[in-house]
Amino acid sequence: MSNINIEVLRLGHRRGRDPRITTHLALVSRAMGVSKFLLSGDEDDKLFENVVSVNERFGHGLDCRYEKSPLKYLRSIAKSDENRPKIVHLTMYGEPFKSTTPSIPTENGVIVIVGGAKVPGEIFKISDYNIAVGNQPHSEVAALALFLDALTDGEGFDQEFPNAKLIIHPSKSGKDVKEV
Amino acid sequence: MSNINIEVLRLGHRRGRDPRITTHLALVSRAMGVSKFLLSGDEDDKLFENVVSVNERFGHGLDCRYEKSPLKYLRSIAKSDENRPKIVHLTMYGEPFKSTTPSIPTENGVIVIVGGAKVPGEIFKISDYNIAVGNQPHSEVAALALFLDALTDGEGFDQEFPNAKLIIHPSKSGKDVKEV
Repeated sequence: MSNINIEVLRLGHRRGRDPRITTHLALVSRAMGVSKFLLSGDEDDKLFENVVSVNERFGHGLDCRYEKSPLKYLRSIAKSDENRPKIVHLTMYGEPFKSTTPSIPTENGVIVIVGGAKVPGEIFKISDYNIAVGNQPHSEVAALALFLDALTDGEGFDQEFPNAKLIIHPSKSGKDVKEV
Repeated sequence: MSNINIEVLRLGHRRGRDPRITTHLALVSRAMGVSKFLLSGDEDDKLFENVVSVNERFGHGLDCRYEKSPLKYLRSIAKSDENRPKIVHLTMYGEPFKSTTPSIPTENGVIVIVGGAKVPGEIFKISDYNIAVGNQPHSEVAALALFLDALTDGEGFDQEFPNAKLIIHPSKSGKDVKEV
């Protein structure tokens, strides 16, 4: 199990268009041990309710909050002392994740920025790392999952979720779900 | 670069609800070296046009086709001789992907089934492997990406796409895009 304190910041959420993709981002974050999910762009209570519902059924694992001013938030972190979390921006334009991720210092935590429709240029500058999960267009959900896998050295899914009502046991051939 | 012949079969696509998730599945497939993407459920020409457009701009890398009868298709493969591709079903109920994936024989190719809203029980039986990318609810896009990463031993993104008009060069600090 990874002990890195990880926050994910989703930029530019659009309530009309992005709920499923952003929900996938939040659930991947939860499943892979991220502690906090910060939503910016449109507010979306329904999205947060979905995460709360998964936490209630499968065990508590992710806190969500809305961040109205993501740039202000990032600026205040970038300006703070050297014991601050590192800021990592996932972008198809960045450096290769497999070779770069192991060099990221993790002892003060990591904030992972996942872009939205339009990413302000300042995000590239304010980030300590601009990291690409492949330099091809694909999916921010896939990029986040692969980056978290690399950051946690493959231990992202080794989580225990307290107060789960449903526990799934791995099975070769079908569904093995225990109700607690 | 991985030389495994990989097909991805998306079950139960719903044109009204799933276009973005299924597009992400197709683009992850393309970016990670999958040769064929089979869509079942609703037909969706617009989705295929999106993939064609990415192929035209970033280089050819994925063929798509619609499969009306995915179970019939899988049954015919399962019944064929032993030199057939292995069938892998991604499901949150399956065996851990990190330990199981290395044991999958790849010399005759691999068909990866990605479930939709309701997966018929026969899929669990007809598959050679039921594999879970974490036993928590999260995202089929993340699951596909992490499984392909494991299957290709981390070489999924080491692809060259012929006839690209746009090539992105990795950059520490901004966008470095070359028009060819």
